[in-house]
Amino acid sequence: MIELSKRLTLVPTSPIRKLVPYAVAAKKQGVHVYHLNIGDPDIQTPECMLDVLRKWDRNPISYGQSHGEPKLLDALVTYYHGIGFSFVTTDMIQVTTGGSEAISMALFSVASPGDEILVFEPFYANYNAYAVTNGLNLVPVPTTITDGFHLPDKKIIESYITAKTKAILICTPNNPTGTVYTQEEMSMLVGIAKEKNLFLLSDEVYREFTYDGKKQVSLLSFMSEIPDLAIVLDSLSKRYSLCGARLGALVSRNEALMVGVLRLAQAKLSSGLIDQLMASELIHVPASYIENVQKEYEERRNVLFEGLKNIPGVTVTKPEGAFYIIASLPIPDAEVFATYLLTTFRDANETVMVAPAAGFYATPGMGKNEIRIAYVLQKESLIRCIELLTKALESFSRTS
Amino acid sequence: MIELSKRLTLVPTSPIRKLVPYAVAAKKQGVHVYHLNIGDPDIQTPECMLDVLRKWDRNPISYGQSHGEPKLLDALVTYYHGIGFSFVTTDMIQVTTGGSEAISMALFSVASPGDEILVFEPFYANYNAYAVTNGLNLVPVPTTITDGFHLPDKKIIESYITAKTKAILICTPNNPTGTVYTQEEMSMLVGIAKEKNLFLLSDEVYREFTYDGKKQVSLLSFMSEIPDLAIVLDSLSKRYSLCGARLGALVSRNEALMVGVLRLAQAKLSSGLIDQLMASELIHVPASYIENVQKEYEERRNVLFEGLKNIPGVTVTKPEGAFYIIASLPIPDAEVFATYLLTTFRDANETVMVAPAAGFYATPGMGKNEIRIAYVLQKESLIRCIELLTKALESFSRTS
Repeated sequence: MIELSKRLTLVPTSPIRKLVPYAVAAKKQGVHVYHLNIGDPDIQTPECMLDVLRKWDRNPISYGQSHGEPKLLDALVTYYHGIGFSFVTTDMIQVTTGGSEAISMALFSVASPGDEILVFEPFYANYNAYAVTNGLNLVPVPTTITDGFHLPDKKIIESYITAKTKAILICTPNNPTGTVYTQEEMSMLVGIAKEKNLFLLSDEVYREFTYDGKKQVSLLSFMSEIPDLAIVLDSLSKRYSLCGARLGALVSRNEALMVGVLRLAQAKLSSGLIDQLMASELIHVPASYIENVQKEYEERRNVLFEGLKNIPGVTVTKPEGAFYIIASLPIPDAEVFATYLLTTFRDANETVMVAPAAGFYATPGMGKNEIRIAYVLQKESLIRCIELLTKALESFSRTS
Repeated sequence: MIELSKRLTLVPTSPIRKLVPYAVAAKKQGVHVYHLNIGDPDIQTPECMLDVLRKWDRNPISYGQSHGEPKLLDALVTYYHGIGFSFVTTDMIQVTTGGSEAISMALFSVASPGDEILVFEPFYANYNAYAVTNGLNLVPVPTTITDGFHLPDKKIIESYITAKTKAILICTPNNPTGTVYTQEEMSMLVGIAKEKNLFLLSDEVYREFTYDGKKQVSLLSFMSEIPDLAIVLDSLSKRYSLCGARLGALVSRNEALMVGVLRLAQAKLSSGLIDQLMASELIHVPASYIENVQKEYEERRNVLFEGLKNIPGVTVTKPEGAFYIIASLPIPDAEVFATYLLTTFRDANETVMVAPAAGFYATPGMGKNEIRIAYVLQKESLIRCIELLTKALESFSRTS
């Protein structure tokens, strides 16, 4: 029998979605499952965007432009200008089919098969998949829950750089840790990129999701310093609750890169026309929308953090941004526990779904007792989820 | 300065879209440009699909399922049953973001970097890009305009197979030639796949677009014969004028393949939610819709074929399907002529855009005097386009 390609077998199962069959089975039994496994916000999409659908009169649904629909490109320029980056022009933006395509296109463009990309562990699980599909090796630099997952010293980071290293890939605010890198951390990374001649890829899809008055420090603010090395990876999914619209962007001042990326975009023809025209309305979303979203998530974080830290044996660090928290559990294998939650544990016919955190690490064995929780549900639900997790940990410890 | 990856430089510019800047400039001068360069149909999208947008009440726009929205998967099963393939179940289908993603996922899955894929030349230009992004080499087997681009003998095809060959990639009805492979040709390919243990990938996005009473012979009808080797690549773009909805499908009975492809789909999270729910209405599109589309394109083909063959020095073969025709022109370089059309030639302030065909070949120098025309405009416009091409060829010959 002919074999499938070896690389197909290396594409990891998403830790966020691998337990879905158990959740489906639980629901079929009539069990209510609280979904804390996936960053799929319950916040309403702005009505001005949905109005584009309701007033739709364009027919046929033809291809969009490969570069991005002009209306969406203009809206994105307006957005970047609005957050203080007035140098951004449409030439520096490539519209992508979700932030995931922006990451994948960037990795394809900056490194060749066998090359290495530095990432800080734990990291967004799908980076593993994009590394496999692009034939690259992720080199994980550890960060720890005790340091709030902030970056290690420059010397330590540099010790991971080899002749094969082509780029450093970061995420701030961070998925899955919630860490927001400081001005100093970002400066350090830009310094390393400059000195070592590496690309710096910054995944900033949670840019507005920062708490306690902190602000994200964007790689955009360093773009004049390393114009050819800096690549910002962006998405509209979280900002406007548009996960299902599959729209993101790759932003760079590297002209050769943008020309190459456009050829990649031509090969897949275009991103969705309807989604793009809908999202173009982002220029009409009032500032209060994002402010309310930020306030809502900050309150949710507070509820979840306070609740989790009071569960015996659970270790957490207060997330500074995004809408995830890593919790270290008093059990040896969090995947077994996450499966137990879906297959066995019930309380008043309810349970909760979480993501085992091991899939957010590249080092085997790391994160095995950790879970990632996405606080994408309302506060009352989160309180109930803490109760469910507390009870489940108790009964799991008794039965195992 | 750090270099971008070599593979990025190898991604070809789309021959369909590379001349777009000239078209944009012409339009800015107020020139009307007839677009025959791209297969973006002017046929109306079914109203029942657009009604889904107009009645949209789901909020937020959350992720779809990685496998595909259940409603769309069910609709696709209904479709395949309706065209006679009652064995198809949702397990055999992966919803993709356009046919392009289906092709790319299939190539990634069946071959490893450095492996070879047999294609029949000329072929859909973007296959070149998907080969580069997946690190594969396309091995072109020539077909000729004088044979109507039908397949060569089995022995000739087999002479191109090496130890590195992993798959044969075909397209029927064919883009760019319009050729529809016969029962005998499909049988021969299935036989080669079986004997030589190769995957057979069949791009069938133009399945319904066949003329003169011919019917497409789908690889689906051979799936029980080579269940692990057969992969059908499909798209909703042309069938329902949904190019901008970015929806396609990969269909296979190879269970290991489908498991692997689902992991690839998880990495990019999902296809567009709105597009999928809209397209699910395909079950309510009356049979007369497709019949009318087929009739319309057949009439257009007749107009275009008759017109083109009467232009002095032009060679064409009558397309049996799809909505493209390859025309050999009495000039040395069709790209120069296509550029001339956009930059210089004007008749009553109108001109026409075509795709130089060299990009549809892998062999250097092949197809240099050919263009691909997509007959995606109404008959009156096509008649005018023939007039424009006739005049342009005359004036081009005089001036060059």
